[in-house]
Amino acid sequence: MKDEFSFIRSIQPDRHHQPTVVAGIGDDAALYDAEEGFHEIAAVDTLVEDMHFTKKTMTPFHIGYKALAVNVSDIAAMGGRPVYYLVSVSVPKSGSWSEAELQEMYKGMTVLADEYGVDLIGGDTNATNDKLVVSVTVIGRVEKGVRLLRSNAKPGDVVFVTGPVGSSAAGLHYLLEGDDCPEHYLKAHQMPEPQVSAGRLLAQAGGRIALNDISDGLASEANEIAEASGVTVEIDWSRVPHDLHGETDEYVEKWTLFGGEDFQLIGCTGQQTWERLTESFEKNGQRLIRIGRVVEGKREVFLLKNGERTVLKKGGYNHFVKGD
Amino acid sequence: MKDEFSFIRSIQPDRHHQPTVVAGIGDDAALYDAEEGFHEIAAVDTLVEDMHFTKKTMTPFHIGYKALAVNVSDIAAMGGRPVYYLVSVSVPKSGSWSEAELQEMYKGMTVLADEYGVDLIGGDTNATNDKLVVSVTVIGRVEKGVRLLRSNAKPGDVVFVTGPVGSSAAGLHYLLEGDDCPEHYLKAHQMPEPQVSAGRLLAQAGGRIALNDISDGLASEANEIAEASGVTVEIDWSRVPHDLHGETDEYVEKWTLFGGEDFQLIGCTGQQTWERLTESFEKNGQRLIRIGRVVEGKREVFLLKNGERTVLKKGGYNHFVKGD
Repeated sequence: MKDEFSFIRSIQPDRHHQPTVVAGIGDDAALYDAEEGFHEIAAVDTLVEDMHFTKKTMTPFHIGYKALAVNVSDIAAMGGRPVYYLVSVSVPKSGSWSEAELQEMYKGMTVLADEYGVDLIGGDTNATNDKLVVSVTVIGRVEKGVRLLRSNAKPGDVVFVTGPVGSSAAGLHYLLEGDDCPEHYLKAHQMPEPQVSAGRLLAQAGGRIALNDISDGLASEANEIAEASGVTVEIDWSRVPHDLHGETDEYVEKWTLFGGEDFQLIGCTGQQTWERLTESFEKNGQRLIRIGRVVEGKREVFLLKNGERTVLKKGGYNHFVKGD
Repeated sequence: MKDEFSFIRSIQPDRHHQPTVVAGIGDDAALYDAEEGFHEIAAVDTLVEDMHFTKKTMTPFHIGYKALAVNVSDIAAMGGRPVYYLVSVSVPKSGSWSEAELQEMYKGMTVLADEYGVDLIGGDTNATNDKLVVSVTVIGRVEKGVRLLRSNAKPGDVVFVTGPVGSSAAGLHYLLEGDDCPEHYLKAHQMPEPQVSAGRLLAQAGGRIALNDISDGLASEANEIAEASGVTVEIDWSRVPHDLHGETDEYVEKWTLFGGEDFQLIGCTGQQTWERLTESFEKNGQRLIRIGRVVEGKREVFLLKNGERTVLKKGGYNHFVKGD
């Protein structure tokens, strides 16, 4: 990049969605105001080229979109709405990323940001001798008192997800194999939709809810809840929703349980809240799918399939990195 | 790293300094409350191994310390006090960083964080095929109404710095050359002190002040102020403070003007505020050194030296990367 400053000007938004910005991009740090009656939420996630994404399966636009989506999803998993983001990019000195590609990456972020009314308020760009690294920080807000923590699950709870899982992994598979990729797999992999509106309904339900976003696969996230809550989670295989059609059983199981990056939410809640939730989701034309239950026991997850109850480890596979 | 979760537990603070934490490390995102009467401040900076730091001149402890210091300095440059930080680390799969070294890096951050009462509330760790990348987000606070922006300078202003510059670059030079490094150069390079208390005095002065932290060298930061404020900045070479003794003129000029990473602050303010400031700094046993003035003209910086007035470009050199 010839001139960091002219690049920064080129990605600088010309208006803000949020009225609480005081000073955005262009100074040492961003200044903004919190909102009365709300907690602040902060999350950061870094994506490394050829570890978390590859140009083989995603355009720069998709990479930007997804880098922000990953973080917006973390805000959704706290029941919050995203308000600001900051982007730190390390650009390869080899020139493997052109300035036009970097602009496209920021454009991918902007498209998602505009959808949710999120403002870019800061960040930095610097050089690296290696691959592209993009680190996104998102700041969000949720009503005071709302704590949708992983540690909230209790025996007797319903376990639910907000939508089908496994399509992102299926998309990655098809793209890497060079096969024709069904459109909905492609979208799940390249432009996953963070479940902000589902998170907001969960936050507004007013009950005790444990919540996690499914970034590393259903098995992994269920284990995190079991671990944090000190409970056993049972998942009924026949109830796990997916949109994988005409695939072998082996792939369906692999993608659904261990695929990750679908960014649906997994949660646990008591029967009463569950009933309120299904009502409010239905009223909003959204769905919440019951996939299991929480029971007393060790901090582990079981899969109920064909009458068998087997331990479901985090396991799975890490993105597309072989031998990981 | 064998197990990310056990590593996260190992770096998790067992107590918080800030009473406004609601939920720190260990969930999808951190939850916290803002403080009434204050703006929130957010900054992010990424350091890439062998670009911004090298194990040749810094231990893992120093690298952690500095990664946080860089960001705390950005908060200081807004007049704020740092309250929270989030750390995202990409760890080389080659094993070039041991888990013990990563622990040391976090320890370096903790030492600085404890000094300023800053709490680690989130982040992530992931793998990379390349060098270590550490991205730190810091959240701070400053009294509502305080805006120490780069764009605040006006003709007639005093230009000042908060302390000597050039020692960090001198330290880097000695360490890379393998020469015996004077202790104060070593400290400036490995454990630079962010100027939080100076920033706080400036914030509390109640006047119009333009402010920048000197991360990329005096010349570069002065140019940023000139650029953002639409003014000309004149720096009087004979007034620029440094602690470089027994060095050649060439090195003194290079390190002082272009060295960077000293994390002193450079600012501009009107005569009346300047007088209040020198008083309040003196009262606190701190100093503010006048090094020049702001005049009308193009957005540029001049160096006044030996009766000559020459344009001072951002120029300089970028850290220790040759041919950059």
